Amino acid sequence: MRQFVIILYVIVFISKPVLAENGYDLWLRYPQITSNAYRQMAEPYFEKVFLPFNTQTGEAIRQELNRAALGMLGHQLVFEEKNAGGRGLVLLLTSDKSIPKFLPGTSLEGLGKEGFLIKSTKGPDGKSKCMVIVANSEIGILYGVFEFLRKVAMQAALSDINDRQVPKIGLRMLNHWDNLTMTVERGYAGQSIWKWHTLPGYIDQRYIDYARANASIGINAVALTNVNANATVLTEPYLQKVKALADAFRPYGIRVFLTARFSAPIEIGKLKTADPLDENVKKWWADKSREIYTLIPDFGGFLVKANSEGQPGPQNYGRNHHDGANMMASAVKPFGGVVIWRAFVYSSETPEDRFKQPYTEFVPLDGKFSDNVILQVKNGPIDFQPREPFHPLFGAMPKTPTMMEFQLTQEYLGFATHLVYLAPMFKEVLEADTYRPQKGSTVAKVIDGSSYGYRHTGMAGVANIGSDINWTGHPFAQANWYALGRLAWNHSLGSEQIAREWIEQTFTTDPASVHTILNMMTGSHEAVVNYMTPLGLHHIMGYGHHYGPAPWYNKAAREDWNCTYFHKADEKGIGFDRTATGTNALAQYAGPVQQQWNNLQTIDNKWLAWFHHVPWNYQIKGGTSFWDKLCLSYQQGIDTVSAMQRQWTSVKKNVNEQQFRQVEMLLGIQQKEAVWWKDACLTYFQTFSKMPIPAGVQQPQHDLDYYKSLSFPYAPGNSH
Amino acid sequence: MRQFVIILYVIVFISKPVLAENGYDLWLRYPQITSNAYRQMAEPYFEKVFLPFNTQTGEAIRQELNRAALGMLGHQLVFEEKNAGGRGLVLLLTSDKSIPKFLPGTSLEGLGKEGFLIKSTKGPDGKSKCMVIVANSEIGILYGVFEFLRKVAMQAALSDINDRQVPKIGLRMLNHWDNLTMTVERGYAGQSIWKWHTLPGYIDQRYIDYARANASIGINAVALTNVNANATVLTEPYLQKVKALADAFRPYGIRVFLTARFSAPIEIGKLKTADPLDENVKKWWADKSREIYTLIPDFGGFLVKANSEGQPGPQNYGRNHHDGANMMASAVKPFGGVVIWRAFVYSSETPEDRFKQPYTEFVPLDGKFSDNVILQVKNGPIDFQPREPFHPLFGAMPKTPTMMEFQLTQEYLGFATHLVYLAPMFKEVLEADTYRPQKGSTVAKVIDGSSYGYRHTGMAGVANIGSDINWTGHPFAQANWYALGRLAWNHSLGSEQIAREWIEQTFTTDPASVHTILNMMTGSHEAVVNYMTPLGLHHIMGYGHHYGPAPWYNKAAREDWNCTYFHKADEKGIGFDRTATGTNALAQYAGPVQQQWNNLQTIDNKWLAWFHHVPWNYQIKGGTSFWDKLCLSYQQGIDTVSAMQRQWTSVKKNVNEQQFRQVEMLLGIQQKEAVWWKDACLTYFQTFSKMPIPAGVQQPQHDLDYYKSLSFPYAPGNSH
Repeated sequence: MRQFVIILYVIVFISKPVLAENGYDLWLRYPQITSNAYRQMAEPYFEKVFLPFNTQTGEAIRQELNRAALGMLGHQLVFEEKNAGGRGLVLLLTSDKSIPKFLPGTSLEGLGKEGFLIKSTKGPDGKSKCMVIVANSEIGILYGVFEFLRKVAMQAALSDINDRQVPKIGLRMLNHWDNLTMTVERGYAGQSIWKWHTLPGYIDQRYIDYARANASIGINAVALTNVNANATVLTEPYLQKVKALADAFRPYGIRVFLTARFSAPIEIGKLKTADPLDENVKKWWADKSREIYTLIPDFGGFLVKANSEGQPGPQNYGRNHHDGANMMASAVKPFGGVVIWRAFVYSSETPEDRFKQPYTEFVPLDGKFSDNVILQVKNGPIDFQPREPFHPLFGAMPKTPTMMEFQLTQEYLGFATHLVYLAPMFKEVLEADTYRPQKGSTVAKVIDGSSYGYRHTGMAGVANIGSDINWTGHPFAQANWYALGRLAWNHSLGSEQIAREWIEQTFTTDPASVHTILNMMTGSHEAVVNYMTPLGLHHIMGYGHHYGPAPWYNKAAREDWNCTYFHKADEKGIGFDRTATGTNALAQYAGPVQQQWNNLQTIDNKWLAWFHHVPWNYQIKGGTSFWDKLCLSYQQGIDTVSAMQRQWTSVKKNVNEQQFRQVEMLLGIQQKEAVWWKDACLTYFQTFSKMPIPAGVQQPQHDLDYYKSLSFPYAPGNSH
Repeated sequence: MRQFVIILYVIVFISKPVLAENGYDLWLRYPQITSNAYRQMAEPYFEKVFLPFNTQTGEAIRQELNRAALGMLGHQLVFEEKNAGGRGLVLLLTSDKSIPKFLPGTSLEGLGKEGFLIKSTKGPDGKSKCMVIVANSEIGILYGVFEFLRKVAMQAALSDINDRQVPKIGLRMLNHWDNLTMTVERGYAGQSIWKWHTLPGYIDQRYIDYARANASIGINAVALTNVNANATVLTEPYLQKVKALADAFRPYGIRVFLTARFSAPIEIGKLKTADPLDENVKKWWADKSREIYTLIPDFGGFLVKANSEGQPGPQNYGRNHHDGANMMASAVKPFGGVVIWRAFVYSSETPEDRFKQPYTEFVPLDGKFSDNVILQVKNGPIDFQPREPFHPLFGAMPKTPTMMEFQLTQEYLGFATHLVYLAPMFKEVLEADTYRPQKGSTVAKVIDGSSYGYRHTGMAGVANIGSDINWTGHPFAQANWYALGRLAWNHSLGSEQIAREWIEQTFTTDPASVHTILNMMTGSHEAVVNYMTPLGLHHIMGYGHHYGPAPWYNKAAREDWNCTYFHKADEKGIGFDRTATGTNALAQYAGPVQQQWNNLQTIDNKWLAWFHHVPWNYQIKGGTSFWDKLCLSYQQGIDTVSAMQRQWTSVKKNVNEQQFRQVEMLLGIQQKEAVWWKDACLTYFQTFSKMPIPAGVQQPQHDLDYYKSLSFPYAPGNSH
């Protein structure tokens, strides 16, 4: 009876945390390993831990391992600081003299500052099992430990491990568009997680857990503030707050960046100008940089949005981007900082196709930037649309490091209510061939420096993180944060592999359920493209808040904020002619890309309306008219969401109750909104095509006036 | 060995939730009962549960009991729907025929709609233990179940239970000042918890947990939206969202109210006027009410802030409060609704002492309000200051139900960074004798209806709840939410008893730790009064955001928003003369109150500057000059906070790690800010008193210019 009672308690206390799961733990849940066989396989590697450094990062490693062991195996760990005993987990800096004992003849070259080697081996006694992790730095070891824990959580065969990993990209970054008012521009998961008011005195547990999550996927840089910047963050009281965050992140290898408002010398420096060639301005930035580095010695640098969408910049003073960027770059250079300058610019005066403006502005400046300036380029030429062709600047700046800016927050992809796994889209861009300097020069090879030998390499994601308990609003949006980190670490990872890792750590290792969820995820991006902007349509969402469809919208202050500017639907057809008969934006790409996309016969259907004004009855690949294909694509998007609903229902028993319900409700919203997109877009475009909605496509539920009448005054994310 | 392993797991899975506690579970944590003796005492009452109704409330009860049993005892429960077996927990509606078997000869009269009887007894077999809970309604049973679970969590002697509880007040309410933009006016714990954008499709788990928490302390009404109201919430799409919330709350006995913007007929009804005597306006509100009640049959009614601080109201049309209130009251009357009209009014035109205006405006209207109008009166005459004398309207409206409005969110009491337990302040007000109609007519007796036989009774708290993981920002702020509910249920409960309940459910039942934490809590309100506004000072905080001290502030658009208006410090003395030589606000109180407070010899020190301009060198009770006492009071406030820091350190081992650290950091901020208050106020007031800071008081750290120079552009809670 007594034994029975004890066993009962075991069941109870195992099941309780599962009931209460709310997503806060992200992919670092460390659920109990229920397979006895696997537990027996794993236990030897947790028998002892040799952890020879007693630093903040050492403490972070110790805590993470204890947490993981407690969760997965049910016990804390024994740590040894001296003389690696050769059992369990052995963490060794490359300077450690005992390395040959564990890894005889293994080369440790090329691990760099952050890489690691992880190898399952025998201890010096030739019998006991151990897992050796070697790196040049404590942060490298931390990354190795997270890799080890990931493998355990995924129940990988531990005795086979022999892996050497070095990140392909240097700056693996999150850009937060967080305001000092706590709102998040284009944030759909609550407020900013930076509690400015209570900093520096109060260090929220979230700051630590945020750093843990980032380190676990290799993210090593964070821009805390909105690119639509507020100079106040550069004042002394706020720098004290930033220092407190930097101190909290440092043990996890994360460096802090700030967005710098170009006019800060005027706003907080009391200068009369922010002209980058003015000596007082230069001195102000130099002094400010010294002030920052005194507080935060490993400060990353500045991220700058200048002369774009109303932000001040060097052009206000008759200077150009390189004048502004180089001036700030010299201010941070003595301290090892960099300036990340955004290429997302378009002038409010010029009538040129918005698509073309960044290329037009920046290509002539190649070679003029200082060596600690990085150009941050969005994945596509417009603005994070559901699908965009790769940005023509990739490959076009041999002398200027261009880094990637992806958007994790789903500004144009259904906010935090649509399940959209973005890694397939990221991969599509990364694997696109720029043909610059030659065939095979993919976007990935440009940004990882292999094409042009860039001194700096980077990949940033605009964060989708907020104060919601589960960080990202939609439980599946966590996967996009995860994927950004993993791809920045190693862009050759497949999107399915990343999804599988995430699912197994986040929800379940049950093979059938993993398969089903993987299926949902991998089809989800194509689905959203289909039910929002199929066949190359883009920028047809609601004005300002960007919620829902509004292809009819034409009231904006600037022509290139109107939806009608982008789709150009008329009685003949639909799409933006960017060939030589139109704006010729295509000319910004290398010859082979131009040739493929210039020709209606060779261009992939998915880029059609990006580059061509396609007649409604044009017979496209696949053998239907463009109009029919458009209608069928919308329907296909909806059908995929319906299938996702059924798939999700089928995994119910292997997913924790709270998140199961949450995703179930959100899929319901997504399904309704997908129908809304189809109905609003088709009733509107039909006024031009005059063609019937083909068989197999559900008729719209309301008329066009109804869709036009909807308004959403408090849609989230629309505050600066 | 196997047994050993099992026991190890038990320990592990018991300890894990403790490590991870973040405050989300509030006082409903249900931690494991570690005392074997107590577990043995409690187990029989959980042997079986007779739960004879299979409704939504029944399901809520079942889930709560299972959750509690799983947490405290480690097992789920067995429920029976038919034929109360006489073991364990027996839940009986008064209509149940088996009641005499369990409670022979017990009167069930007077339980009302929400009361319950709970009694430990023997089953019909005369041997088995059972706990019988009887009520006229399922909600009464739910309340009884929560009472039972509270007693178990506090490890009360269960076999002694024989309790009959009927709430003293009808409307036990939270008023949320939440905006549709998700900001919370005077909110310091994150965003609004109402995710308007994803309603009605997505029901956040928080809605359910919010309802559970409220039901556990008897709260039965919620105004969802800010009293500075937005008419949009009354439009059809938003009413669908409100309905979804009402549906989620209903099983827990909670009814929803909305704030009604008086000009809504113009803003969303396309009328030209909102004149309450206009037939179209009457019809609009009647139609709108019908629309609401069709969706939400148990909708509570409207909460209205009219003609106050810029809000529109009947006076805009030459009408008075009763015209407006009665018009809206007739709209909801057919459906059983009420109108809660706020007495917090002061005119921007009139130069009269702000203290006096609500009384002046409303007393002449007594008897003119319809019988479903309730007047909501703040506890004091100004605006939720750290300490205020009771509002003179209490007791002055024999024919108009006046209900209490307390403020839980600490707008003027240190935001969410100061540990301030408010129940002693609530009790001070509730126990104040209005002498109306006679001696002994306390504020509590006015609002609970015993003085004048009010048809409606109510107590509201302006919520301190937000999207922070722990709901209230400061872990101890949860206690104020808890206390509001408990006092509304039974205002004769002592503040210490309520604190003890809360501590034992929230942190620990260890007697020494409970004693220490109780001590911290009970002294905390007096501390904040001392370090902010001792001796009757009031309204000397920062302008707009209300953060920190700014007694020098005199730049506001209205005189009575200036700090200098309220303290009137000059070379002679300090304080607002509200006696007959001044504004004579004192005349609004009953004679005995006037007499006591009019006289410097009989008035309590704590009210001095509320009613008198006191000379700096006036020798007050206690034998020091007013100036010295002022300085010493500030110091005493700081010293109390320092003592709280030491006390908190002493309970470290009995409080979960995360919340321990959290409170420790927050006490550090509180300590610094207490010193800031002292230094800023004393350096400023010293410019008038010209007297030295006495021995025993720390010298200010900076000069007055420094304190005046501080600015807080993004202090939280300052958005409408």
